[in-house]
Amino acid sequence: MDANIYKLTEIIDNDIKNKNLSEKEKLKLANDIKKLLPQKSIAVAQINPTSGDVKGNAKKALEWIKWANLLEVDAIVFPEMYMIGYPIGDFIDRFPIVVEENIEWLKVLATKTKKTKVIIGFVEFNKSKTGKKYFNSVAILANGKIEKIIRKTLLPNYAEFNDYRHFEPDFVNSESHILNIGNKKIGLVVCEDGWNDFDFFDKNLYKLDPVQKIVEEQHPDYIINCSASITRAKKEQLKHNMLSFAAKKHKTPIVYVNQVGSGECLSFEGASRVYDENGELTYMAKSYEEQFFIINVNDKEGKIYPLPNGLEKTLKEQKAFSLDHEPDLERTYLTIIQSIRDYFAKTGFKRAVLGLSGGLDSTVSAVLLADALGAENVFGISMPSKITSSESKNDAKQLAQNLSINFTEISIKDMYDTTREKFDNVFSSVENKWDCRYKESFTNDNIQARSRAMILWGIANEFGSCLPIATSDKSELYMGYATINGDMSGGFAPLADVSKTKLFALAKWLNKNRIQKDAIPVSIIEKRPGAELAINPKTGKPLLAEEALMPYEFLDEIIWRVENLQQTICDMEDAEFLYEKHLKTQGKVLSKEQKQEWLTKFFRRMSTALYKWMIMPPSPIVDARSINKSEYKQPIISSKINYKKTSIEEKLAELE
Amino acid sequence: MDANIYKLTEIIDNDIKNKNLSEKEKLKLANDIKKLLPQKSIAVAQINPTSGDVKGNAKKALEWIKWANLLEVDAIVFPEMYMIGYPIGDFIDRFPIVVEENIEWLKVLATKTKKTKVIIGFVEFNKSKTGKKYFNSVAILANGKIEKIIRKTLLPNYAEFNDYRHFEPDFVNSESHILNIGNKKIGLVVCEDGWNDFDFFDKNLYKLDPVQKIVEEQHPDYIINCSASITRAKKEQLKHNMLSFAAKKHKTPIVYVNQVGSGECLSFEGASRVYDENGELTYMAKSYEEQFFIINVNDKEGKIYPLPNGLEKTLKEQKAFSLDHEPDLERTYLTIIQSIRDYFAKTGFKRAVLGLSGGLDSTVSAVLLADALGAENVFGISMPSKITSSESKNDAKQLAQNLSINFTEISIKDMYDTTREKFDNVFSSVENKWDCRYKESFTNDNIQARSRAMILWGIANEFGSCLPIATSDKSELYMGYATINGDMSGGFAPLADVSKTKLFALAKWLNKNRIQKDAIPVSIIEKRPGAELAINPKTGKPLLAEEALMPYEFLDEIIWRVENLQQTICDMEDAEFLYEKHLKTQGKVLSKEQKQEWLTKFFRRMSTALYKWMIMPPSPIVDARSINKSEYKQPIISSKINYKKTSIEEKLAELE
Repeated sequence: MDANIYKLTEIIDNDIKNKNLSEKEKLKLANDIKKLLPQKSIAVAQINPTSGDVKGNAKKALEWIKWANLLEVDAIVFPEMYMIGYPIGDFIDRFPIVVEENIEWLKVLATKTKKTKVIIGFVEFNKSKTGKKYFNSVAILANGKIEKIIRKTLLPNYAEFNDYRHFEPDFVNSESHILNIGNKKIGLVVCEDGWNDFDFFDKNLYKLDPVQKIVEEQHPDYIINCSASITRAKKEQLKHNMLSFAAKKHKTPIVYVNQVGSGECLSFEGASRVYDENGELTYMAKSYEEQFFIINVNDKEGKIYPLPNGLEKTLKEQKAFSLDHEPDLERTYLTIIQSIRDYFAKTGFKRAVLGLSGGLDSTVSAVLLADALGAENVFGISMPSKITSSESKNDAKQLAQNLSINFTEISIKDMYDTTREKFDNVFSSVENKWDCRYKESFTNDNIQARSRAMILWGIANEFGSCLPIATSDKSELYMGYATINGDMSGGFAPLADVSKTKLFALAKWLNKNRIQKDAIPVSIIEKRPGAELAINPKTGKPLLAEEALMPYEFLDEIIWRVENLQQTICDMEDAEFLYEKHLKTQGKVLSKEQKQEWLTKFFRRMSTALYKWMIMPPSPIVDARSINKSEYKQPIISSKINYKKTSIEEKLAELE
Repeated sequence: MDANIYKLTEIIDNDIKNKNLSEKEKLKLANDIKKLLPQKSIAVAQINPTSGDVKGNAKKALEWIKWANLLEVDAIVFPEMYMIGYPIGDFIDRFPIVVEENIEWLKVLATKTKKTKVIIGFVEFNKSKTGKKYFNSVAILANGKIEKIIRKTLLPNYAEFNDYRHFEPDFVNSESHILNIGNKKIGLVVCEDGWNDFDFFDKNLYKLDPVQKIVEEQHPDYIINCSASITRAKKEQLKHNMLSFAAKKHKTPIVYVNQVGSGECLSFEGASRVYDENGELTYMAKSYEEQFFIINVNDKEGKIYPLPNGLEKTLKEQKAFSLDHEPDLERTYLTIIQSIRDYFAKTGFKRAVLGLSGGLDSTVSAVLLADALGAENVFGISMPSKITSSESKNDAKQLAQNLSINFTEISIKDMYDTTREKFDNVFSSVENKWDCRYKESFTNDNIQARSRAMILWGIANEFGSCLPIATSDKSELYMGYATINGDMSGGFAPLADVSKTKLFALAKWLNKNRIQKDAIPVSIIEKRPGAELAINPKTGKPLLAEEALMPYEFLDEIIWRVENLQQTICDMEDAEFLYEKHLKTQGKVLSKEQKQEWLTKFFRRMSTALYKWMIMPPSPIVDARSINKSEYKQPIISSKINYKKTSIEEKLAELE
């Protein structure tokens, strides 16, 4: 198709967003584009709905439907569950009114349709006597009415997906998935329906492959898949390979329409696309942006907007642990930025306040917040205690200056002293009744983190539309190395699914790739992390995190092995870690005892960190697997799991 | 059967718990009982497993299996998933080692079996090429080996249940559910398999009723149902009616074996039982206690241990809102006590510290903690600020004395003053950059709640095995009337599913029904609730909660209508509330405007409280429906849901 179409549709996109065209100007623009459009073109509505905001979603859809009508494309396709706004949690269970309203709004939208078909995801009531209350459905609207409804067949119920909690699976027959667009016969499926190819996967979750069934029995001209599929590390590779494989195998083009935008913890990257009957990618919409994207399924030379690094790079890479995080950093950046922006927008907040310690976590958080919300909407507060070094204070200040975010410094020394004195009093009372007083420094150390959080929440209470930010990272959350009501407390936690080694890489990447280069002072990236809450008695300097935990390089590989390979302590004892390889190149060896000690420490600390995971604020899922509550839940009481296999003999001995 | 059997089995129960019998004494006891036992008796192992503690669960099972062997009963039946310990969250997904180990331990247990069959729930790998990774299965062990495996057919996936996340449903045929015990033919099903009777329910979740299929095709002598089914308000009524109905309809006795004990948020009440072929209840084990309970399915006059009030009373009651909470208070009490006790025991904690404000929430919490953990393990801290009245201070002190819990008083005035000064400084810096400063009192009010939490967490950090307690109640959590990092922060929240009107009733009930009468000072029960964080400018006295919110009587009925009837604002406008009826009896009327204002306020406040629900600590589910995270999740970003229906005309007008 003509490249000008894309220029013009980009104008539409921008103008829809800014709503500054008069009706007359719209009509003129539409006529300009229409001349360039081939017959049989359809529009992909790659847009960002808000959970539960049925009215808002419907109104937004209508803007796009009007354009589709003006352009007289054959159809406009919206993502899965668009009307109600994915993700839904459980609200349709407790508030059926939202479902009633999504149907009423669907009817209203239908009245606005003409010849152009509107294909749009919604939630439908299941009126039969058996089964779940709802169907996950797609409506086809045209000529003023609802012409047909097609239902999702395969209902994912793992990780972040909970479809089977609410929806009844439905596959009446292959014909029920057929609709006509122009003079073409289309097979329509919903998201997971396209993810069960028996030749592509070694193991399948479901017994039916709806795509295969539809193709074999109905011979459609092409398949449309309406999706809401989230971005994760290395997932694009799988998705691309699978869709391409299926198109080629079935000699049938596939139009894949994906949601864009972030819903609390889940991020959708868009990148809607077309594969031709040879499995070749012929069209691809933008990533991480709303787009009104025009396609012609039979055209082999459509527009392919590039994927950002991390999506693109994974196309060629195998699943393996690597400390080379570089290939995934652009995707990571875009995912977090979109998450912050949408979380704030969808909850009605616009400003963020965070503590700036001069350390890596708060530094990277500040950069991401500035990029997502605008520097003027970010306030960094340096809150030194007596342990805080002057380097840290300077780094924090310098960072704020570089980013042009708002900044102030305020000592917490007096808060610490007052609380400390209070503790001394109250502890001596408690000590009269209870034994087992630790007199460890961490009780006092935590005063610092909690005093800081008190100030941040105070600012958020006092100033409109402001959220405090929790800066904890993934590596430290696994170790429980985060203070309850302290650094892990906040309205949003942008880094909770980013490991420490990746954070270092991200910091360097930000310095190199943002328009403003080197915003992060090099000293922040070069210093070894530490919470600066306590002094290490051995060194007389602030305790470093790796002294309290273990080398981050080793820690992050354990996390990766747990999440991606489901390995036990025994498996990891036998495996060679990158950390060990690196030691070798320096002529050193990691002793078996040290390795065992770290592995045991990891699982021991993880078991006691489960509580902290449960009370973490919302945070974006970024990695291939996470400990985000919306994906993974482990009961706090499961702290007695033994992560080390024992033999039958050992078991029998236990019983004696 | 002879009543002495039950006396003797109670001795077994107690001695197993205390482990103080020699082998010789055990043998003698067993022989005494054996003489009294009829042929064809079986034992129900109503016990309390720990999630993921496969070794601990296996060792505990073995003690009971040994008794069953000694007594030569025909079989001993354990609950669903006993080996792995329900609930599991998602840990079997990330840590398959736990499943491997539960199978290895099952093999070890099998080596200890003799003629007596052991029927025990476990998790099985699904080795086929399609489907979920696991089955929810029951093993039949005997004569040293695993004789048979029977799989769960219906997989609940609503509210607190997530079976379908991990398990593949399986129903090969009705014969696969048959086993022999003595000369009897038994049909075995797992929990939900027994909850899909087409004649009992108006609407069914699944298309198959396994019990019906098994009975019709196999004609078993009786059905065994291995369950892990939680207690909720009014659920016993449904369960009893359904099991009785099915036994009568199929003319087949049903043996229902339920787990006891609490797993984090879920509480199992035990009360395992037998219904005869006429649907009559013939046996019932204890509630809220482990029990080795001997039954003879053909005996019509078995032992029926009484249900506590709340379980028993609901047998006769219909589902309706009532401010008469009395019938459910004993069950509520036992559920929370068991939850606290098990949460502490299973996580390795033993002591609790809480703030005592002299208000209702902290008062009832203190009583429940003292009963669950022992008074010596509870520390109440009175932390008055300048707003705290001397009555409140006295009430707190009096309560602690009455309960014999540990107590101290410490003023937070200096912490407040120091933080307040800090706030003044930092706010004036922020104000230079940001507009929209509220200068509302609640910013300062929150300092009090947060300073108190700082002290409680400090004590928990400093003293071994100690958890701080969050005292928020259900009514206030719905309203977001709880301070982040303040009163809603803690290691456990015993009252988070108890509404305020029920709390008042519970306080009175405790004064009447505990061994120690009137432990709660009457003044605490009689005063109207208020957080004592702020002064009401209109009255010059501390702001009352009902002034800030709405009458609790009205509020609690909205909550009940939302949770149990899924009502909208419009439905509630049309309904007559108990509060309105009560006003009427006083010759007063609730104005339409006032009612609308409260309804609107409820949903507005609820929408902004969603974040607080997400970061709440673990708490027991008590009510028929809850906002406990393990049951109900609503995205924080769904704050734009409109809980009021609009007409098509209004919708069309929106689009103009």
